[in-house]
Parts: sequence; C-alpha cells; structure tokens
Amino acid sequence: MNEWSRLDAAELNEIYVEQLEQYKAYQDRKLRLDMSRGKPCPEQLDLSAGMLDAIRAGEPVTAEDGTDARNYGGLDGLPEAKRLFADLLGVQPDEVIVGGSSSLTMMYDTIVRAMLFGVPGGDKPWGKEAAVKFLCPSPGYDRHFAICEQLGIEMIVVDMKEDGPDMDQVERLVAEDAAVKGIWCVPKYSNPDGITYSDVVVDRLAGMKTKAGDFRIFWDNAYVVHDLSPLPSRLKPIFAACREAGCPDRVFEYCSTSKVSFAGSGVAAMAASRGNLDAIRKTLAVQTIGPDKINQLRHVRFFGGPDGVRAHMEKHAAILKPKFAAVLTLLEERLGGIGIASWSKPDGGYFLSLNTMDGCAKAVVAMAAEAGVTLTKAGATFPYGLDPRDRNIRIAPSYPSLNELQTAIEIICLCVRIVSARKLLDARV
Amino acid sequence: MNEWSRLDAAELNEIYVEQLEQYKAYQDRKLRLDMSRGKPCPEQLDLSAGMLDAIRAGEPVTAEDGTDARNYGGLDGLPEAKRLFADLLGVQPDEVIVGGSSSLTMMYDTIVRAMLFGVPGGDKPWGKEAAVKFLCPSPGYDRHFAICEQLGIEMIVVDMKEDGPDMDQVERLVAEDAAVKGIWCVPKYSNPDGITYSDVVVDRLAGMKTKAGDFRIFWDNAYVVHDLSPLPSRLKPIFAACREAGCPDRVFEYCSTSKVSFAGSGVAAMAASRGNLDAIRKTLAVQTIGPDKINQLRHVRFFGGPDGVRAHMEKHAAILKPKFAAVLTLLEERLGGIGIASWSKPDGGYFLSLNTMDGCAKAVVAMAAEAGVTLTKAGATFPYGLDPRDRNIRIAPSYPSLNELQTAIEIICLCVRIVSARKLLDARV
Repeated sequence: MNEWSRLDAAELNEIYVEQLEQYKAYQDRKLRLDMSRGKPCPEQLDLSAGMLDAIRAGEPVTAEDGTDARNYGGLDGLPEAKRLFADLLGVQPDEVIVGGSSSLTMMYDTIVRAMLFGVPGGDKPWGKEAAVKFLCPSPGYDRHFAICEQLGIEMIVVDMKEDGPDMDQVERLVAEDAAVKGIWCVPKYSNPDGITYSDVVVDRLAGMKTKAGDFRIFWDNAYVVHDLSPLPSRLKPIFAACREAGCPDRVFEYCSTSKVSFAGSGVAAMAASRGNLDAIRKTLAVQTIGPDKINQLRHVRFFGGPDGVRAHMEKHAAILKPKFAAVLTLLEERLGGIGIASWSKPDGGYFLSLNTMDGCAKAVVAMAAEAGVTLTKAGATFPYGLDPRDRNIRIAPSYPSLNELQTAIEIICLCVRIVSARKLLDARV
Repeated sequence: MNEWSRLDAAELNEIYVEQLEQYKAYQDRKLRLDMSRGKPCPEQLDLSAGMLDAIRAGEPVTAEDGTDARNYGGLDGLPEAKRLFADLLGVQPDEVIVGGSSSLTMMYDTIVRAMLFGVPGGDKPWGKEAAVKFLCPSPGYDRHFAICEQLGIEMIVVDMKEDGPDMDQVERLVAEDAAVKGIWCVPKYSNPDGITYSDVVVDRLAGMKTKAGDFRIFWDNAYVVHDLSPLPSRLKPIFAACREAGCPDRVFEYCSTSKVSFAGSGVAAMAASRGNLDAIRKTLAVQTIGPDKINQLRHVRFFGGPDGVRAHMEKHAAILKPKFAAVLTLLEERLGGIGIASWSKPDGGYFLSLNTMDGCAKAVVAMAAEAGVTLTKAGATFPYGLDPRDRNIRIAPSYPSLNELQTAIEIICLCVRIVSARKLLDARV
C-alpha cells in the first residue's frame, strides 16, 4: 500500500469509515486489557516458585561469613549477595550495596540524600542550591521523572537517538550549567525504546566535562540480564570508562531482581565507587538497621550464582519472545509502509516505543481506552507528562496472554489508523 | 549492709581493693560478651522457623482481594496484613500502612517527608522553617536521636518520670515554641526504662495545646505485644484520646514484627489518621511501587491472626523472663541497699535502665569493656550522646545465654561497685 499522505480525501475517508466500523465491533466486546505497566505475567512468576522453598524450616539461615540472616545487623548486604550483583553489574563486591526489594526506592533515597546532605565532590546539599536540574533523555521512564518533579528538580529534555541520548546536547548542557547535577539513563534496553547505548555514548558520558563538581549519572541498569536474543546487546561497562576518564565518582548504578524473581519481592542493589558508598553508608546507618537478609540468602541459594541467573533469564525470554514477536508482526502488518507510524525493535527489556504522526498519541491512547485497552498515559514518557510532539506510546507486551496481547495490538493499530486518517483528512479541508 | 556513703575511708578502701581483685580475675578470663543492642537470641528466632514454610512452592500466593502477592502493585500493604496490624495497634485497617521490614525506616522516612514536604496542618515543609525542635524524653532510644541529629533537628531533653515524660515540661515547651514540631515516645515498655505511660500522660499528650499547628507525636509502639508478665501493662489507646481531644492528626504510630518473627526480615507498619495517610501515600507512591507483599502474606499465614501473635509472644516471654529475672536478682544481690545504684523493673520490652551515682556511667561502661563486656555506649540514651548526670546504663538481657548474661551482670555490678567506691573515696580526700 502507498503512503497515506499521498491518498486523496475520498480514499482516506473510505479507510476512515471502514476502520471505525471495525473499532466499534471491538467496543461491543467490552474488553478489559491492561498494558499500562511493565509487569511480568503469571507464567514468568511461576518460574521462581522454587524461591519459596529456597530456605525451609530447620535449614541453616547463616551467611558465609557466619551472619545469622534472621537477626539484626549488616547494613549493606550479605557478602554472597554483594558478589552475585557485582558479577551481574561487572563491578567489585565492595562497590555494591545490596538493599531491600526496590531499586526505585534506592534511586529515590539516593537523590533525597543528595538534596539533604550533598554528594562527594559538592560543596553543599543539592537542596541548598538555587536550582537543581537533571537531564532527561526522552522518551524515558515516567517514575524517574516523577522523582524529579516531586523533589523540585528541573527536568531538561534530551533527545534519544538510535544509540542513546544525543551526546552533543548532553555535553553542551553539562558544560555550561553548574545547576545540572544529574542525568537519568536506562542504558540497556532503554525504557521505552529498548535502545542499548553505544560504546561511544558510554565513553562520552564517562569523560565529558561537567561544570558541576558533584554531577552524577543515574545508571538504571534495570534490564542488565533481560535479553531476548541469543546474541544480546553488549553494554560497555561504565565504571571502568569513568575510572579511565578520571571521573571514578560519577556513576550511581542500580538494578534489581524484580523482573528476574518476584516483582516487588525481589532484591535490589546499587553500585558506586568506594568513596560514594562510604558517604551513603554513613547516612543509611541512620535510616535502617539493615535490609531483609533472609530474602537475600533465598535469592543466592535459588540462583546458585550469576550463571544461574542467566539460565533463569532464558526461561523468561522463552515466554517473552513470542509476545514481542507478535507485537512486531502485527505492527508491520497493520501499520507498515503507510507512513503513519514507526516503532522500535528491541532485543530485550520490557518495552517498545510506538511513534505515531505528530499530534496523534493522546487521541490514540484515549480511543484505545474506550475500547477497553489501558495504555500508559500518553506523554508519560516525557518530563512533566509533556510529549512535545504528542507521538510516543509505550507498549508493554509482558503481562497479557498472547491472545489478549494480539487483540490489544489490533485495537491499538486500528486506533492509530483511525486517528491518522482523520488527521490527514482534517489537513485537506 | 549500710549505705556506702556512710562508710569511712578505710572501709571503702577495703571494698575497693577486694572488688578490684575480683575484676582482675574476670579480665584474665578474656571474655567477649555483647550486650550493646536489643537483639533476640537464636532460641527466640527458632520460634519462627515455621515462617520459612508458611508459603511453599506450588501454594497460592494470592491475597484475599485477589492480588497476586508475587507481582507489582499495592502501595500500602495487603488488606489482611492491614487488619492484623490494626488489631494489634487498636486502630482501623484504613488507618494503617504496612511497609517493608523496618519501622525505623518508616519513622526516618516520615520525618524526611515532613522536612521536604511538610505535614497536614503546616504551612510549609519543616526544612523551610528557621528551626525545628523535637522533645526527647530521656533516657530514650539512641536511634530516634540519631535521626534528629542527622536531619539538623534540635533536641530538647525532657525528663522521664515513673509514668512517662514529665508532662509539665512537655506542655510548657509545646505551648511556648512553634518550632517544637515533634516528640519521640516509646509508650509501652519504654527504651531503656521499660516504663509504660499512664492514662493521664496519654490524655495530656493527646489534648495539650501546641503552638505549632503541625506538631506530631512519634509513637514508637515497638513493644506493643512484648509482655513478660501474665498481667501486662495496659497502654491507653492514643488515637481515641486524640480524636476525643479534637486533635485527630496528632499521632504517627509505628510497630514491627522485628522482635516477633525475624529481626530485620519482619514486617513494619505505621498508623495515622486518614488525612495523614493520604498525604503520605501521595509522596510514598513516588518512592516505591510497593512493599514486599509475599513477606506480608507469610506473616499473616504463619500467625493466623492477632491471637496467634499473642500466643507466639508467650513463647518469647518464656525465654526472656528468666533472663530479666536473673538480671534483677543479681542487681539486688550485688547493688541492693547500698545506695550506689537504682534500676527499673519492667514488665516487658527489651531493656532496663541501670542508674549509677552521678558521674559514674562512662567509667563503668569503660571498665566493663576492658573485662570483655560490651554495653551500649554511656550517654547513648540521651540526645547528642550527652547524659547530663552521666549515670544511665542500658541493659539488654535478650541476646546472651543465661550463663553469659549472669557473668556479664556480675562484671557490670563489680564495675559499679569499684567506680562508686573510688568516687566516694575521692570525695573524702
């Protein structure tokens, strides 16, 4: 089929009417399909059933250093848990703090601490600065942006390119403004595009000159082991790059097992230089006596080690791959070659981006909702919920069954076609 | 024996020399006994072994409202977990937020939120005030004081009396100074005295006039079910008292199962008015997607309900009672009737207070350490670590075995006798 922009009004109208009829048929089915969040599906959660039996009554609950995991103590995680995360993140065990169940909480708390107490390299708490600004490569993760918004941190949109954030923009902004204290990055299988940063981007982030002496990269490596291809994307290790560039304190890295074991009952960890971690431990010791060590031990025993995690992730991939494939197939069938949408084709992670023509995303999401398909709010992938081109829609294929997913994508494609046809028709008036 | 203050120098010197000899014999034994923290002993932790089997692989991990506890979602806790804590705290389920594993973290986060965003009834965040002050009934819990110190909250010492804080002091301070925003309370079996607040104290706290419109009581009900006597202390419910007094938003209450199930892997909860909780949920939703719901469900299933918790606490009491009894017996034997020390006799909780003559506590703790007995740092039970009379020593009988405990108390009593004799001798020169 030709690009729709070349069709005349009669042809467009014919398409519009026909698609609207199909849409109404879906509406009559009173569907309720939720694709708003990147939640694992029940079959994925079943993969970790053995976690529940990993430590049974009567078995020792003792860590390798003799710590009784049932009692108080151990501020920053068990040694075997640190080693497991260190291996997954490509850092040393003493560069890791293993925490509770949520990496989002670790990020939030890191920024709150920076606001209240500052970070090494700064001369005052961020909260005492006239302004604090974060660079937000967008589309990005709405919960990152919500943290900044709540804490009064001004967000500056940076464009996402094929291989990561637009580094010309980033380098210019960090060099000229000392108020720019941070950048949000989901460097592997980014949320929502599924992009993995190139080596060049990692090196430029690690080595760029920042006006702020206490600038930090918030490296949310949420999908570090979440590959869908047998030839997974390789992300250049940023810690080594930062050390080589003479900026060893520049990165806070985060990950969790929320999408490995149980979402919400997993184990989260962060990595940073020893200097950063010493500063964090000092304040952390007042916030908590220590994390849930039994759950850390459960994870270590269930997975056995990093290879066990990787083998486990292959089982996740076996469930997720057909879902991602189905989405891509349908998008191609329904929206391919007609010039009204484009989309990303990730090799891992939990999301893909669907970009409509400018000014169509909100209308598509609203129409889909009226046919029973709940999507992430249009605009949510941008700071303050404002997508300047109103075109980005986040697709989360993991939770629905394959059948539900196909129906949902059919409906979304229909909505894109209807809204696009109407827009093109309007332009002809 | 007579009071030592009436002895002459020769008699005191004889005691001093004799006790010092005994002390040196203990030193030669190279003991290592840690009584610094209120940790449950291994036998207490064994009581909850069944918790590890409370949810097994293959069993449903579904809450009563259909929530899959393995997945994301549910910001403030499962309904059955809310109900359990509501019953224990004497509030309604919708007045409860069930969190992660640490009530200390919930307290810390509540105050951080107040600093950054304020609380209902206030006109600005506490962090924007010229000064924020907390009343600290002392001796009290060192970790409460550490939170204030870290956040730059000025602490004002209030004396502890037999039935709670000196309410004349409290009422005067809250009435005259709008910077006084809070008071720390461990109302049942207080840390370290083991005192339970009287009804009169609860009523005066609930009804007192505060100059600050956003004053809060931090009601750390850590020992709500931690009775050692078959006729436990009864604490008047503060929520009802506050509502009756027309101050429904005045209290934040906290508790956890850290000393019920597993210390560090338990479940924590807080209670507050619906207005307070709505404000908290609004900010909490940015900090976390939700707490570990599997662990909440584990606790609900293991205990069955509030009566199950109470029955479980009787097993704890059976282990702890002989330890508290041994401490009290030895204190009476070694230090009774000679006018050099006094101590509290709690009916529950985890601590008791040993008060030496003024100016002796630091020396006693140092001497005990040199004989291998680690105690909580002298002064730690007061804000900024400064015990104005240098007399309060916190005794934590739970962790050591009965034998170790008896040895430790023998050594502490020896140290008190030696330091006291020396002090009385010095005064005679």
